[in-house]
Parts: sequence; C-alpha cells; structure tokens
Amino acid sequence: MGEKEKEMANKHPAFIIHQEYPYNGETPLNMLTGSFLTSTDLFYVRTHGNIPLIAPDTYRLRIHGRVGKELVLSLDDLRRQFSQQTLTATLQCAGNRRVEMMAVKDIPEEVPWGAGAVGTAEWTGVPLREVLQKAGVQASARYVALLGMDQISKDGKRFPFGGSIPIEKAMRPEVLLAYAMNGAPLEPAHGSPLRLIVPGYIGARSVKWLSDISLQETPSDNYYFTRGYQLYPPGIDSASVDGAQGIKLGEFNINAAICRPQEGVHLSGDGSQVQVQGYALAGGERGIERVEVSVDGGETWTIAELLSQPLPWSWRLWQAGLDLKPGIHQIVVRAWDSSAQTQPENIKPIWNLKGYMNNAWQRINISVGD
Amino acid sequence: MGEKEKEMANKHPAFIIHQEYPYNGETPLNMLTGSFLTSTDLFYVRTHGNIPLIAPDTYRLRIHGRVGKELVLSLDDLRRQFSQQTLTATLQCAGNRRVEMMAVKDIPEEVPWGAGAVGTAEWTGVPLREVLQKAGVQASARYVALLGMDQISKDGKRFPFGGSIPIEKAMRPEVLLAYAMNGAPLEPAHGSPLRLIVPGYIGARSVKWLSDISLQETPSDNYYFTRGYQLYPPGIDSASVDGAQGIKLGEFNINAAICRPQEGVHLSGDGSQVQVQGYALAGGERGIERVEVSVDGGETWTIAELLSQPLPWSWRLWQAGLDLKPGIHQIVVRAWDSSAQTQPENIKPIWNLKGYMNNAWQRINISVGD
Repeated sequence: MGEKEKEMANKHPAFIIHQEYPYNGETPLNMLTGSFLTSTDLFYVRTHGNIPLIAPDTYRLRIHGRVGKELVLSLDDLRRQFSQQTLTATLQCAGNRRVEMMAVKDIPEEVPWGAGAVGTAEWTGVPLREVLQKAGVQASARYVALLGMDQISKDGKRFPFGGSIPIEKAMRPEVLLAYAMNGAPLEPAHGSPLRLIVPGYIGARSVKWLSDISLQETPSDNYYFTRGYQLYPPGIDSASVDGAQGIKLGEFNINAAICRPQEGVHLSGDGSQVQVQGYALAGGERGIERVEVSVDGGETWTIAELLSQPLPWSWRLWQAGLDLKPGIHQIVVRAWDSSAQTQPENIKPIWNLKGYMNNAWQRINISVGD
Repeated sequence: MGEKEKEMANKHPAFIIHQEYPYNGETPLNMLTGSFLTSTDLFYVRTHGNIPLIAPDTYRLRIHGRVGKELVLSLDDLRRQFSQQTLTATLQCAGNRRVEMMAVKDIPEEVPWGAGAVGTAEWTGVPLREVLQKAGVQASARYVALLGMDQISKDGKRFPFGGSIPIEKAMRPEVLLAYAMNGAPLEPAHGSPLRLIVPGYIGARSVKWLSDISLQETPSDNYYFTRGYQLYPPGIDSASVDGAQGIKLGEFNINAAICRPQEGVHLSGDGSQVQVQGYALAGGERGIERVEVSVDGGETWTIAELLSQPLPWSWRLWQAGLDLKPGIHQIVVRAWDSSAQTQPENIKPIWNLKGYMNNAWQRINISVGD
C-alpha cells in the first residue's frame, strides 16, 4: 500500500522518503532554508498509519466531555461561526535529528530522521479556544484530548492517532484548528480537511485529520500519549518500559542545524568567506537570541547573522561567513534562547529509548581546497 | 557603612556574606534545602547600593507613562483597592553559581556566588495587573520600566536600581507587588515596604524598594538593564562592551545543585546509601520533570526522588540514595524540564563576561571510608 501513500503525499522529487508505509519523509537540508516558509511539497510528513482521504462535505468535528454543550461542527460551521486567523508557525517532529542518536546506540523501529523533520508554514483556521468557549469549558476540564481519523495497526489493535495538551495551552490564541497551509486547503498528508496546530510543541500534538476533541480531567489514554512520545531516562533501554518513567513531551527544546554546506561536501577555492546557513528554533514562547558557529570544536565562536525579523512561534534562519584554510573542517553550531538556555555539547548525544529531542551541538564535516 | 547594612540585613549567623557594602550574601548550601520554604534570615540578598529605610506611611508608588490616568498609591491604597494574593515563588540571582565560572577565567568586580543565591518564599501582595488595569494600559505600552529607591554610585553618577519586563509578563497573574514575605512584612534587605515579584525571571527583575512604574514603548534605560544583566557572547572579554551584543536576561534557564553532602566533605562508614539532596528549578513556566545524579562522570545516572508535589514558579527539592565504595568520588547532578531541556555538560562552564546563568552539570567531590 506504500505506492498509494506516496502518490497521495504529492511531494517534490527531492523529498527524502524514509518509509512508504506508514509514509514518513523529510526535507533535504540543502532545500530547507532557502526561504523562510517551507513549501508544502517539501514539508516533512510524519504518519503512523494510513493517510486517510476524507470528503470535506461529510467531515464533522465533535467537541464533548467536560463541556456545557456538546458540539458537532462541519467545516462550513467552523468557517462561518468563528474568526478566521492566519499564523506562521514552525512544526518540528520530536524525532528530528534522531539519526545522530542512532549512531550512539541502536533505536529500533523508529524513523532515522535527519535534521529536516522541521518546517515553517502559514496556517489558516479558527482559534481552538473560540470553539471551546462556544462549547463551554467546565472548571474540571484540565486536558484537551485529541483523536485523528487515520487507522493505526499496533499490538493487534486498530486505533487512530491521539494525544492531549493542557487546557491552559488549548485556550491560548495561537492554537488553531487549521484547514489551510500556505494559502491552500490542507493536503491529505498534512491532515486534510482539518488539523490542530499547537505552536511551540512537538509536532505530534498538532493532530492531523482531527475528528474528536474531548475535554477531560485526565490526559489522553491514546498509545501515542501514554507510551509513545516519552522522553525516557538514558538508563532505560528495553521496550517493556513503564510509560510513567518518561517525560511526556510538550514544548520542544532549543535546537539548531547547519543546512548549507552539506555534510561531507568538498568546496573548491581558497576557503575564504565560506557561507554557512541554517535554522535555529526555541520551544514554547521562547525566541532565538543568538546563534554561534565554531570551527575549532567550540574553543572560539563566530556569531551568525540572524536573518529577517523574529516572528513568534517560528524558527530563525541564520548565516555566517567563515574563513577556512584548505583541509578538513568540522563546523559546529549552537544557539541560545530568550531563557538563557543553550544546547548541550555532547559529542555523543544523550541517548534515549525512542530517540527524541536530540539537541546536542550539531556538527558537519567538510573539506576545502583546490 | 558596611556595619549598618549588616545590622539592617538581620541575617542568620551562618549566612555567607560576600560583601558588606553593597550588602551581598547567600545561604550556606547545607541549610538551603532542609525545608521547601527558605526562612527569611537565610534568604540570599543581592544589592547594588544602600539598603534604604523607608517609612511605610510616607511610601508612595507612582504609575505613569502610557497609561490612561497616572496613579500615586500609598500602601493602604494598595491593600484596600486591590485583591490580596499569596504566591509561593523561587527567586534566583542571575549570578548564581558564578564562582564555578570564575575558575575558568577571571570575572572582575562581580560577586563570587556559590549555588546558594536562590531561595523560595511565600510572597503576599497585589497583582501588578490589577494596578495597571486601574491606571489603564495604552495600546502602545510594550514594556513596564521599574525603579527602586536605593542609591547606587557608579561612573560618577547616583541613581536607583532599575529594569523592565515585557507588558505581556507584567499582565500575568503571577506578577505581584509584594509587601510581605513568609507571612511577615518585608525586611529592609528584601525591599521593604514594597517590591515586585516576577516569578520565573532572574531576581534582578523583581525590583526592591519599588517606587516608580513607567509604561513605555521601549525598555528601561537604566544601567542594570542596558549594560548589566546581559549575557555576553563567550568571545567578549572586555569591559568596554556594546550592550547590544548581550542577551538581555529575562527567564532563567534550567539549573540544579547538590546541597548535601557538601563539597570536600569526608563521610565515614561503608558508603552505602549516602543521601544526596539538593534543588532543581526551571525558568519561566516550565517545571522540573527529572533529576539525575551520576558518580561515574555521566556514564550512568541514578534518578533522584522528587520531593513533595510540584508548585508553579517554585523549585523542586530532590534526594537520591547512592552506594559508594570507599575512596574519592565526584557526584554530578543534572535536571530535565517540561520543555525537554537539560543542562550542558561543560566540565568548564561556558564563560561570559558578567558570569551569568551558569547551568553546567554541577559537581561535588567527597571522600568515603573509615
């Protein structure tokens, strides 16, 4: 069934497909930071089951649980009864840069993401909080549990992808029920006809093909909340883990990557003013304050130029000109955010069972000279 | 004039005084985490000038700038016209753990703080936002600039301590105009009769002896905002720095420290079940999710027990029982927060000109055996 997914995904020929079913792919790094917005046909896709095809006119969103009045809304209802907003936001898979962690120790059954499982788009939709306010939020509602319409086969069961976010986040203005991406209706691979966008959180919380919103006293009991997307302690290396030992991921941590030049490339010429480019992003509401690159393993650092003005919930692109002597060089990048946080050096990233949230200083190796 | 400050500071005999004038001191680590709340006579004090003595009945707070109506409020006005709230919050000096950074390279003219420039108290006062709402916040107000009533002599000038916070933070419910600490009126050293409490931010933004609140389009032009409390890049090592190159500190980063046993101590006995205790805290609204200790330099980690239930804006105390063989040991601690952030390993902390925000893995050396 991989062929069908590939056709539906409708991606650029250069898109890196890690798996055809479930369909998973990322943007080639040299095409990631050419523009601030990532074009939809290059935007990473993370799925755990099929890519469902849902007819927009039969689509319904149900809001229930600890509400004053249960709602069932069509796409037209959403468009007509609530304010339409467009927001630029970066999404990042919790497994971005996992492949570097796999080099430390095997991570079975997970996608070997490079640093391209991230992208920035304009999302158009209605604020989740307007819909929740219309339904009426009971005081006991502490979490918003979400379900998609995909079908995942796991451990002999079939179920849709799900997860939850705290009610405080759900009620913030940046959380959107989005029906458009970069000015066009959502593509099937990106959650058509409706997905959630939870800026500042790992991509897994921005549930695609969203059909069911339940206000609850307790978080979601979906596998991808209770077992998946857990940051396990480094000492846990067995699949028979206790979900309670993991940190349930929400906001992502600070990260940065070099996108150009590419790993392993040879640059001819004298090595003067080699242009290095990439992205940096901070989780939650934090902003990137500084990006630094080093060619001596972190002894000294060059401050990169941050491109364009900062936008909330979005990455910063950056560039730096380096003078390199002929020979082999390792270029290292790290960023600092508005909470004075930087990335850990860790030449070997701190391994965890599911390979999440690798944010060690990113390194590429290149050679220079004629 | 140091004697007068010392008398006014009214501290515990074991309190570590770094400077008598301006008066600066911290809690001994072995007394820091015996209880969740830090008693006032042990709570760290950071001043840049005198400790002013202000008669509560003559005290006035002025709110002006981009407001609908300028306000001048007495303490009685504050108590009678607004809601009284009590909030537990941890304050941390931006220079906490600077002494470890000084070991990398000199940091002139700064206080050599250990890991005790942090403490948790119950603060009682009125929400800043209620006062701002009464004054009327103009749409152009983007920052709240704050001034104290102390007198600082610097570069041939005399001026009070100041700084600013973004209007978004100022309007949050946790930001208090506090007149009481741990159930008693503020002590002079802690800002009597009124100070701001900005939970999740570096202590410097919780301006003491607060007398003046100005709503502005631009941040404070006070020295301690434009020049002080800047996180400079590691390559800047001259005092003639450009303030624009530093990150203006707001939220603090994740940190953790071992408080017992103390550095350099010898523990008799067989080394089984050595109890290690300390604190961990995350900046902003983030919470501590996990604390880990290692006795093999970070190869393997023991997960510490987090004590009591998490409280917003407050540290987590933790403990771990370690089995140590007779001999010399280095114990290392690191924490993880709700944004999947951990601390950098950095055996040598990343040095910066003013010595701020050191959050490298903290290490103590002890010996065990008969």
